[in-house]
Amino acid sequence: MSTVNFAEKLAKISEQWSPKIIARMNDYDFKLVKLQGEFVWHDHKNTDEAFIVLDGELTIHLRDRDVVLRKGELFVVPKGVEHKPEATKECHLMLIEPVGTVNTGEAGGTMTAPSDVWI
Amino acid sequence: MSTVNFAEKLAKISEQWSPKIIARMNDYDFKLVKLQGEFVWHDHKNTDEAFIVLDGELTIHLRDRDVVLRKGELFVVPKGVEHKPEATKECHLMLIEPVGTVNTGEAGGTMTAPSDVWI
Repeated sequence: MSTVNFAEKLAKISEQWSPKIIARMNDYDFKLVKLQGEFVWHDHKNTDEAFIVLDGELTIHLRDRDVVLRKGELFVVPKGVEHKPEATKECHLMLIEPVGTVNTGEAGGTMTAPSDVWI
Repeated sequence: MSTVNFAEKLAKISEQWSPKIIARMNDYDFKLVKLQGEFVWHDHKNTDEAFIVLDGELTIHLRDRDVVLRKGELFVVPKGVEHKPEATKECHLMLIEPVGTVNTGEAGGTMTAPSDVWI
């Protein structure tokens, strides 16, 4: 039960594409992640996933369109909807999703990160 | 499935202490609220509640201490923990909590607001 300051937590993150847990609410985690470049196509079969951009700009490619998210914007990817995040410059992002949600869903691959690391 | 811009949504809120839903993730709502002054002591018996300050400063009184939250800070009040929000100047806040969570918990009273209003 302590206050979480996003800037302080972000300052501790160096590795990109590796979400770190900063808080938990019931069985949901708040995670921060820095990302740049292109992620992999994936979905989450059993859950929606919320994206909030804290700094920079994020494109979420969907199969039928692109969603551009800027600082101070939120987007919820519904469960089962394929998406591919991409950022030209480094983007600072908060994810809210159920405990144990893996960043690559069921797609796997080298960009898969642990889902249980706190910072 | 649309992008939510916090500033645009906040501009549509005039009434204080009346949370408005801006997005839903599974069975959780993201709500925005403007508040100033003192709320009532209450708790939520069945759920944690996440507070993120988007602008201004919020004090969350707990029975054993006060938590001060500033812009860019997050705090999760655990279920069953009594709390009383207070803000000297108008504070812009995001709440994340299960669908149907009532702002005053089971305390009731004149500050109780509908929990199902989207903006």
